[in-house]
Amino acid sequence: MAKKQKIFKPKARIPRGLRDMQGPELAFQKLMLEKISGVYESYGFDALDTSAFEYADALGKFLPDDDRPNEGVFSFEDDDGQWLSMRYDLTAPLARFVAEHYDRLPKPFRRYQWGSVFRNEKPGPGRFRQFLQIDADTVGAGGSQADAEMCLMAADCMQTLGLKCDQFSVNINNRKILDAILAQVGLDAQADDYDMRRLTILRALDKLDRLGIGGVADLLGEGRKDESGDFTKGAGLDKASIAKLTDFVQAGRDTRADTLKALADIVGDSDIGTAGLEELALMDALMQENSDSIRFNPSVVRGLGYYTGPVFEIELNLETEDENGDIARFGSVGGGGRYDDLVKRFKGIEIPATGISIGVSRLAAALTLLGKTDTTSVQDLVVLLVMDKTRLVETSELVKTLRNAGIRAEMYMGDSGMKAQMRYADNRNARLVVIEGEDERAAGVVTLKDLQLGQQNAENIKDNEEWRASEHAQTRLPRAELAQKIKEILS
Amino acid sequence: MAKKQKIFKPKARIPRGLRDMQGPELAFQKLMLEKISGVYESYGFDALDTSAFEYADALGKFLPDDDRPNEGVFSFEDDDGQWLSMRYDLTAPLARFVAEHYDRLPKPFRRYQWGSVFRNEKPGPGRFRQFLQIDADTVGAGGSQADAEMCLMAADCMQTLGLKCDQFSVNINNRKILDAILAQVGLDAQADDYDMRRLTILRALDKLDRLGIGGVADLLGEGRKDESGDFTKGAGLDKASIAKLTDFVQAGRDTRADTLKALADIVGDSDIGTAGLEELALMDALMQENSDSIRFNPSVVRGLGYYTGPVFEIELNLETEDENGDIARFGSVGGGGRYDDLVKRFKGIEIPATGISIGVSRLAAALTLLGKTDTTSVQDLVVLLVMDKTRLVETSELVKTLRNAGIRAEMYMGDSGMKAQMRYADNRNARLVVIEGEDERAAGVVTLKDLQLGQQNAENIKDNEEWRASEHAQTRLPRAELAQKIKEILS
Repeated sequence: MAKKQKIFKPKARIPRGLRDMQGPELAFQKLMLEKISGVYESYGFDALDTSAFEYADALGKFLPDDDRPNEGVFSFEDDDGQWLSMRYDLTAPLARFVAEHYDRLPKPFRRYQWGSVFRNEKPGPGRFRQFLQIDADTVGAGGSQADAEMCLMAADCMQTLGLKCDQFSVNINNRKILDAILAQVGLDAQADDYDMRRLTILRALDKLDRLGIGGVADLLGEGRKDESGDFTKGAGLDKASIAKLTDFVQAGRDTRADTLKALADIVGDSDIGTAGLEELALMDALMQENSDSIRFNPSVVRGLGYYTGPVFEIELNLETEDENGDIARFGSVGGGGRYDDLVKRFKGIEIPATGISIGVSRLAAALTLLGKTDTTSVQDLVVLLVMDKTRLVETSELVKTLRNAGIRAEMYMGDSGMKAQMRYADNRNARLVVIEGEDERAAGVVTLKDLQLGQQNAENIKDNEEWRASEHAQTRLPRAELAQKIKEILS
Repeated sequence: MAKKQKIFKPKARIPRGLRDMQGPELAFQKLMLEKISGVYESYGFDALDTSAFEYADALGKFLPDDDRPNEGVFSFEDDDGQWLSMRYDLTAPLARFVAEHYDRLPKPFRRYQWGSVFRNEKPGPGRFRQFLQIDADTVGAGGSQADAEMCLMAADCMQTLGLKCDQFSVNINNRKILDAILAQVGLDAQADDYDMRRLTILRALDKLDRLGIGGVADLLGEGRKDESGDFTKGAGLDKASIAKLTDFVQAGRDTRADTLKALADIVGDSDIGTAGLEELALMDALMQENSDSIRFNPSVVRGLGYYTGPVFEIELNLETEDENGDIARFGSVGGGGRYDDLVKRFKGIEIPATGISIGVSRLAAALTLLGKTDTTSVQDLVVLLVMDKTRLVETSELVKTLRNAGIRAEMYMGDSGMKAQMRYADNRNARLVVIEGEDERAAGVVTLKDLQLGQQNAENIKDNEEWRASEHAQTRLPRAELAQKIKEILS
């Protein structure tokens, strides 16, 4: 008979690279989303929510640091033969949305969005395959005032989350200046291999933090052998070109004005370079109110191929241990930049856009390290013990009375005895426990125990008698006064 | 050259059966989630968030109304050969979570969760392939007080969302009573074909609303030919058995007490039936405070195979048009029930559980029809027009001043002229527009225009002069008084 067959018992385990979240960690994440959403809204951005997956061709292949088609994305074939991909960021779906609804949208279109994004990558410590981002973008605005707004808003978000000016920085660079220098070192933007050569150089520059200027120079030249002996082929540039590029990434100075001067020397009279410098100069003028945490830093590369102008990264001034236990910079918790070509993919016409993306999980990890995770968003819990199952109706009515008074309260729902019920209240981090046994009921009173005051270990309480004997942190009071008393204790 | 190749231009379209959400609809959804979360929290449930996908074997095949394996679920193979499925509800992932972390969890484990679920089904009107659910479950509680709590909480949620007692009902049935009757009509629970025959009967009973009692009787007997001539094979029961089952689904009376009596007559002395009745009787006693909207209704079936005791559905007393334009009941916006075997799949031991799930999108649609969607969660917007691009710094400083005063304000970020800027402010539903042209700047004043008072059509304003000429709903005031004045208008 079917019932007698060996029944398959699956192993309960979350897929690798994913995670569950609960308790203070989840409450803090919610608080972060509310605070950042609040900043984005105060700047005039409106909320948008898009679907979790998109047609693969509409999503495109703009995964950070990824030039291998179809890698990094979760995809499946729909029953009509079309391929669907789960979103890997919130920018590509925005481009689809704007292109689909262009005519009816206000221009510029200013939206914020938060949600999970998915990367089909090898998971690692702190590296998940599903994580939260919260983005704001202005689509249809070509001026650098829109980029400056993003950087000011990024700084506002960090401050709203409790960080001081010296605990973070928003580092800004401009792809146009980089492209000017690439032209100066002989890369031909019309050549077949331009995109590939540019990407190789971008990746080399992006390793400044990790490899230092010597390592970057090796990767711009013949190549570099790492500690394990593996050889990475370089970009093959000559010495003068390498010097030009390493001068560029090291052109950051203490003030934005000084960095602009240093960059002007490097850029010379290049048209595109001058355009990039003018963009940065306007941003500088619009960000005078914040000159401490917003900086120009030519070492900012950002992996995505779609950026076309200013790019920026939010970095925390925080050191942590890397996978090998070495001290390392915590790194970026968000960033963004100008991407004038992303909507063009659909529309054929250029629609200038700029945006910012904050990695919520990564930022939460950083704030935790910095001790900035205070959250009191969930009310204290009151647990009413069940002493007598024939009195469930009375106990549930008492819970209802408390709840009507605005108190977070529950009746114990399990089948276990006194000891387990106390352990349960402890496990739930309940603040108060209410007990109404036979004696109390006869006298019209209830016993109220303050677990926070009490510090008693529930493990040590053997039975009802012993519970009653423990004097401190517990009071008897008339049943009718319970709600009022609890409100006094909690306030 | 690569650049000259024909470039692929994808069509911007959202995948079928999915949708984007923005504006008041999204704001209302957020408000609903907050209100329902608030009710769940006040009952003592704690938030949990699980990953969007699970290993396919851990998720199981418990899709509502679906006995075809692997249908209805989005799945893909991981690079280690394991299959992943996107969650189709929040209950199966909860079972996995509880089984995985059983030892460390408080018992009972009480969690609430909201999030998107995914169904790989044919989309239709109001039927999406991604939608939001918000659930609460108590795992490790066998008593009917836990089921009663779910029903009371469901009613509380509806009332918190603005519904009156007569606008909704929570309808309760019990699978144990149904199983008692199935035994009475001769189904052998040990037979190979029991699950299949039971499902056929459940599906027939579930069609009472749509086909009436005659149609249900046909489906319990030989079968039924619908209007199009298609024949659905029936359960093949004899007349007496059909009468027993149709008596059962029609046993609902005006009061819970009368329904209990009617059910007692039908159930007779069956052990499992009596157990089911006792569960309902205890629930009745615990729900005395709410006898208007919580009802016993034996026609409630609910599709999921995993229910083992009380089941319930939240129905709105609301009529709407179906796909054919006919008037139809709006139907269920949520429900749940007891599922004592779901965690057992992993653990081998029975862990009793009960829960509720509310379909957020569906409930939002119902509340919209009922006019209950008031939301003022987003602040009024103030747009500062850009009259002179050489004055961006001053304008952005003025925006900052307003924002520091707690006003939601933005500077226009586009490149267009006066007319387009006014149209933009209109499209954004901005409440106020601030203008600071050359004249104003010379005089140290700004012009403030109230779009809500104004009712002017931006289309009709040709230029700056005409704008200034329009008198009503606009004032000039000293620049330094702007923030104060706006706060007065908005308050």
